[in-house]
Amino acid sequence: YGAPPPATNDPMWGYFTAIAGQDGEIDADELQRCLTQSGISGTYTPFSLETCKIMIAMLDRDHTGKMGFNEFKELFPLLNGWKQNFMMFDRDRSGTVELQEMSQAVNAMGYRVSPQALNIIIRRYSKNGRVFFDDYVACCLKLRSLTEVFRRRDTMQQGAVSFQYDDFILCTMSI
Amino acid sequence: YGAPPPATNDPMWGYFTAIAGQDGEIDADELQRCLTQSGISGTYTPFSLETCKIMIAMLDRDHTGKMGFNEFKELFPLLNGWKQNFMMFDRDRSGTVELQEMSQAVNAMGYRVSPQALNIIIRRYSKNGRVFFDDYVACCLKLRSLTEVFRRRDTMQQGAVSFQYDDFILCTMSI
Ligand SMILES: [Ca+2]
Ligand SMILES: [Ca+2]
Ligand SMILES: [Ca+2]
Repeated sequence: YGAPPPATNDPMWGYFTAIAGQDGEIDADELQRCLTQSGISGTYTPFSLETCKIMIAMLDRDHTGKMGFNEFKELFPLLNGWKQNFMMFDRDRSGTVELQEMSQAVNAMGYRVSPQALNIIIRRYSKNGRVFFDDYVACCLKLRSLTEVFRRRDTMQQGAVSFQYDDFILCTMSI
Repeated sequence: YGAPPPATNDPMWGYFTAIAGQDGEIDADELQRCLTQSGISGTYTPFSLETCKIMIAMLDRDHTGKMGFNEFKELFPLLNGWKQNFMMFDRDRSGTVELQEMSQAVNAMGYRVSPQALNIIIRRYSKNGRVFFDDYVACCLKLRSLTEVFRRRDTMQQGAVSFQYDDFILCTMSI
């Protein structure tokens, strides 16, 4: 009786519902378990709970605070892209990306940031000058979201945007 | 021979140097150990490494990526203030601050944020609608730094600020 919800045709739907459980959405704990089991981090350390929280916050388009099916589907291509990226820019195969490599990675993703901003980024996401995969993904997620926030407001593409205080807090506190 | 460095008169100096070790500055791991040992979290769960990283990033005025003595001294009054705050607004003594209580706390700290921004803040820093002390401090640190960033630029106090892209990224990626 009646058409099935669109998602039931999707091979990922069963996987999603198994993780999401009763509430039909994925929270940070569920996401961490699922990503660890999926083996997406490969030989790198599995994602921390904090990075999982950032993933949810960055993709939470419908503002439920959790990850729905469409948001979940958006995540995997992003993670796979960043993983390829990470492996490519870790030229010396140290398992981490260092200042020089990180600078190339950020440029390759199309972000135009000053050396000063890059330094701040590295300092925030590195341990002893080395950026691990988990922190690399957290960094990419934030950079992507903040750039989106900026571009959405920079409609005239002038490279400058005006924020009201409340809007500024709203955009930046969720990251 | 010569005057001692100013800090040696300070009773906290010995404590600081013992934690900081050879490099004379405190990193996130050292800070987490020190705060756990200091018992400042009381009966609440000790600070997570992520919150310790935020503490360092938020107070890192000289941009070394670590915590120097002056930054370290700035931290304790802040933490004690937020702890008192937290206990005061946890009216039902649940050990966590809930939506209503959080709203009062943010207002009491003098931040004027809309219900929408407050919702986003709560969603980001709560687990099942409850804000724990560790996340409360992370939230207060970020709100304080972002408001400072905004106010420093809003010299005419017009409640609106213009950011260049690089400046926006620089200010927000470090948080
Ligand atoms: Ca959602
Ligand atoms: Ca490397
Ligand atoms: Ca409470």
